[in-house]
Amino acid sequence: MAESLENPRAAQKAAPVERYREAGVDVAAGNEAVARYRDVLGEWRHPAQLDAIGGFAGVFRLPGESDTALVASTDGVGTKVLIAGELERYDGVGRDLVHHCINDILVCSARPLFFLDYLAVGKLQPDVAAQVVRSCALACRAHDCALLGGETAEMPGLYARDHFDLAGTIVGIVDVDTLPDPETVEPGDAIIGLPAVGLHTNGYSLARALVPRAEWEDRFGEGTYADALLEEHPSYYRAVRAIEAVATVKAMAHITGGGLLENVPRTLPANAKAIFEQQRWSVPPIMRELIRRGEIGVDERYRVFNMGVGYTLVVPLSDAPAALAAAPGAKVVGWIEARTGDAPQVVIHPARAA
Amino acid sequence: MAESLENPRAAQKAAPVERYREAGVDVAAGNEAVARYRDVLGEWRHPAQLDAIGGFAGVFRLPGESDTALVASTDGVGTKVLIAGELERYDGVGRDLVHHCINDILVCSARPLFFLDYLAVGKLQPDVAAQVVRSCALACRAHDCALLGGETAEMPGLYARDHFDLAGTIVGIVDVDTLPDPETVEPGDAIIGLPAVGLHTNGYSLARALVPRAEWEDRFGEGTYADALLEEHPSYYRAVRAIEAVATVKAMAHITGGGLLENVPRTLPANAKAIFEQQRWSVPPIMRELIRRGEIGVDERYRVFNMGVGYTLVVPLSDAPAALAAAPGAKVVGWIEARTGDAPQVVIHPARAA
Repeated sequence: MAESLENPRAAQKAAPVERYREAGVDVAAGNEAVARYRDVLGEWRHPAQLDAIGGFAGVFRLPGESDTALVASTDGVGTKVLIAGELERYDGVGRDLVHHCINDILVCSARPLFFLDYLAVGKLQPDVAAQVVRSCALACRAHDCALLGGETAEMPGLYARDHFDLAGTIVGIVDVDTLPDPETVEPGDAIIGLPAVGLHTNGYSLARALVPRAEWEDRFGEGTYADALLEEHPSYYRAVRAIEAVATVKAMAHITGGGLLENVPRTLPANAKAIFEQQRWSVPPIMRELIRRGEIGVDERYRVFNMGVGYTLVVPLSDAPAALAAAPGAKVVGWIEARTGDAPQVVIHPARAA
Repeated sequence: MAESLENPRAAQKAAPVERYREAGVDVAAGNEAVARYRDVLGEWRHPAQLDAIGGFAGVFRLPGESDTALVASTDGVGTKVLIAGELERYDGVGRDLVHHCINDILVCSARPLFFLDYLAVGKLQPDVAAQVVRSCALACRAHDCALLGGETAEMPGLYARDHFDLAGTIVGIVDVDTLPDPETVEPGDAIIGLPAVGLHTNGYSLARALVPRAEWEDRFGEGTYADALLEEHPSYYRAVRAIEAVATVKAMAHITGGGLLENVPRTLPANAKAIFEQQRWSVPPIMRELIRRGEIGVDERYRVFNMGVGYTLVVPLSDAPAALAAAPGAKVVGWIEARTGDAPQVVIHPARAA
């Protein structure tokens, strides 16, 4: 579970998620923490901070500049590292992290400038650390983003000998005039979804509770459970840039912890609601398996998992065909309707055989 | 222990530190990792990356700008968090972290713009998390720096229930023309030292090995061992700005893990060596106590601890009086001599009763 510091709306909406709590992640405590952070941040807000558009990233106007802002986000890869560490498959975790960070600032339409990693270990194994950092470097390079620095901390007593944690911070840049304006979202707009290929970086505490270590190397689909669980968190950078080139993008959301139910509302105005029809896309097999094993209810599954949609863009319906043509795999996954009163901001119609 | 990604010189110099290794921190492994990182980073360097001046921070020239660079650094507070967590004293750890980060980019003379925190916990306690984030916010505010965002991750299985880790990333700005130029350092220059008040954020794995939990609340000096161990990592921002206003500052170093022996050479040209006379300043009592308990040798103590000097500035001797007058507590702690061949780049003359 991961909560943005600046996501008050998620704090208001989320109900405790029972299965997730049984797995050791307390979503209610997360929301309580977010509410407290809001108080703390209310005490100190720098005048150069701009509206954070859903809290996926922070936006800071450059000094002396009227039209350029820096966009920054810090993230971790969560307990996916425990699976990667156990299986000694380190070459994906840096890519997962960098992609996660890139997608977060992409919600503000920002272009990445540089990234810094934080690697914390119980016992420093130089070869492992180098694999992790190389994995970050390759993902940065693929986005013309500098790997500007990082910190490797060996902390016996805090981390078990073979455990590690990985977090990172990205800084990007955007013209203030090109920031998406969610207030322009209106009924009839289409919601474009970009496909998710797996859990990405969320739901791993639950997944580890439902698929025990002993099964990780068992056959699942065309590979193993481990393959499916470690499937990469994709970067949506090129797809989004391609869509922005041909469509008016009014609002975007990166579907991470909280799923469609909590992430989509973060960038919608209060008078808009999003309707999703799940028959329009497919759910990755690993999620269907986890739902089956955990008997996870409809509401919970759309909160804990991305359910096959990794990133959403709201565009005028007339722009949708061009958007779909620009980004392979993109689908219209739903639409915007008017919202009144305290109606839910996201409605999901599950497919019959979800 | 903490290693910058871009500190090849430290990698060449450090010998294994026996006591520290017994405490679970393997400095040799750290240096091996740094050497491997160098290979990784050799494969991908963004054209906007500038020379990092000793690797305390990364420097990135802003797109389309000829004269402005962003300066960024990621750091953690190390296992100091284990003491803070055990004693439930959370109000200092955020300040320690923010100050550490500010000092790191100050080596490039950068002014902080914004900071993001990463808080990872075994079991999320909203009240504790809020105290940690408030501690960050207050330190940011005192430096007119935005707390732009952050990530709180609850990761059962990776962290023990009452454990947490805290890291952060700072981004600052500097005119490229005002970056210190270590190549101007020459024999006869004075080294100004700013006083350290304790361990700051380094040496805690060793300190915890030498002062067991049972003694933390025992009397030590005017407080307890806990007070001495948790003494804050100070910000040197105002002192350095005051000195820069009256003196030509040629090179600076933030004395963190690696001590004077490893941090000072990072910003010295190869033809310069630094001579320190330890009788010129005092060593904090907690370090004297740790040295006594651990029978820590002269070389090791100057590698693991700051030994009372938290930050160094190289200035022309003629500027030293003005520099000392500008910053309370500042002292001339040494001077620069010519270096030839493979002579050590730092020589320390210990005080008789160190």
